[in-house]
Amino acid sequence: MARRTRPRYELYYWPTIQGRGEFVRLALEDAGAQYVDVARRPGGMRAMMRFLDGKAPGLLPYGPPFLKAGNLVIAQTANILAWLGPRLSLVPHDEASRLAAHQLQLTIADLVAEVHDTHHPIASTLYYEDQGREARRRAPLFLRERIPKFLGYFEQVLARNRRSDGKHLVGARASYVDLSLFQLVEGLRYAFPRAMARMLPRYPRIAALRDRVAARPRIARYLASKRRIPFNEEGIFRHCPELDAAG
Amino acid sequence: MARRTRPRYELYYWPTIQGRGEFVRLALEDAGAQYVDVARRPGGMRAMMRFLDGKAPGLLPYGPPFLKAGNLVIAQTANILAWLGPRLSLVPHDEASRLAAHQLQLTIADLVAEVHDTHHPIASTLYYEDQGREARRRAPLFLRERIPKFLGYFEQVLARNRRSDGKHLVGARASYVDLSLFQLVEGLRYAFPRAMARMLPRYPRIAALRDRVAARPRIARYLASKRRIPFNEEGIFRHCPELDAAG
Repeated sequence: MARRTRPRYELYYWPTIQGRGEFVRLALEDAGAQYVDVARRPGGMRAMMRFLDGKAPGLLPYGPPFLKAGNLVIAQTANILAWLGPRLSLVPHDEASRLAAHQLQLTIADLVAEVHDTHHPIASTLYYEDQGREARRRAPLFLRERIPKFLGYFEQVLARNRRSDGKHLVGARASYVDLSLFQLVEGLRYAFPRAMARMLPRYPRIAALRDRVAARPRIARYLASKRRIPFNEEGIFRHCPELDAAG
Repeated sequence: MARRTRPRYELYYWPTIQGRGEFVRLALEDAGAQYVDVARRPGGMRAMMRFLDGKAPGLLPYGPPFLKAGNLVIAQTANILAWLGPRLSLVPHDEASRLAAHQLQLTIADLVAEVHDTHHPIASTLYYEDQGREARRRAPLFLRERIPKFLGYFEQVLARNRRSDGKHLVGARASYVDLSLFQLVEGLRYAFPRAMARMLPRYPRIAALRDRVAARPRIARYLASKRRIPFNEEGIFRHCPELDAAG
């Protein structure tokens, strides 16, 4: 009987939310990579905590997600994707494109952190109920000022990319950044359905990119599978109806 | 008469604050690199705005800082440093160390964003006065929970680095991440002098690293020069005495 081969990639992330780990999951899924989502397996949380508690050798991650590949341990979402991108053929080969992809991913990460703070503007250790008043002040400004600034930027990047006729953020084919922009849009639509229904049509290239990514065969299968954890009120993107204002 | 050679690196950043650009300035200064701080020169702001307004070819940066080197335009502080590090001999050669350095830099960036939000918890477009009440709620929690979490992490990373006997974050010699941790500590000491006077001694390796970086000859000369913009109330690290609580 053949022994099971060790999977190439081990992803470590919280098992019950999409969160930041989802950006990595989407890249692995789109590429059909052989990976395990460690913390979702029996004993997996303990395996993850060993790293976070500093009991595993090598790099100490500040937090999940982190990826183990051979002896390498790589932390920080954008860092993981910059490393995985070439290995999954999800970024062009030239240096300028890779640097561009990484800076776009970091810009998405900046917005993701801001989204989190719409429901936790004071501290991540306080309950939402204990910072609801501040959240109700912050969220409308986020919707009115920040979403247009960021989505306007990504729309402009798409429009300027002549290599793909405005269809991809970087280069002539889909890259991990396209997948991440899809995820950002999905998260924003979940958290702010009314505001996004009104705003997304102002960014037709982003809306079209979202649809194209959702239709990619492996992504479509993944989204329909149990591996895709549903959005929920523990993740970064949370639906608090009172924060989904008219903006 | 010889024509002036074009400097190798052009840094674009707001000319009146340290901000995120300072992490790049420190690396360039420590390496003695030939660079210009474009926006601090006559006509430089206009040159920077050309990029941000999308009138320059190539990558559209979301915002400063960005670096121009030959035809490359690189945006996002950590991305710039990951690219510059090997060129300035400010990161070890091996892949694991480079990935570790980048993840540490991104973790520093996460804390820097949180520092900004201590004085702007609701929106960066509102005056501090219009969000002072929320800031007075957020800052004590930041001091009590977030600084210990992050500084405790960096202290642990230093303690685990046997290649340098706890003196450097990555590898056996100073890297750009050491310079960035120095800058983070300096910023926190400026913004929260009372809290940091009490807290920094709990992190002796970080305190010692801060002193060693400050004593590096090129850094010492830079800090004493007019090129080092003083901390001020327009930057990321701001001294609001009422936020510098007992924690």
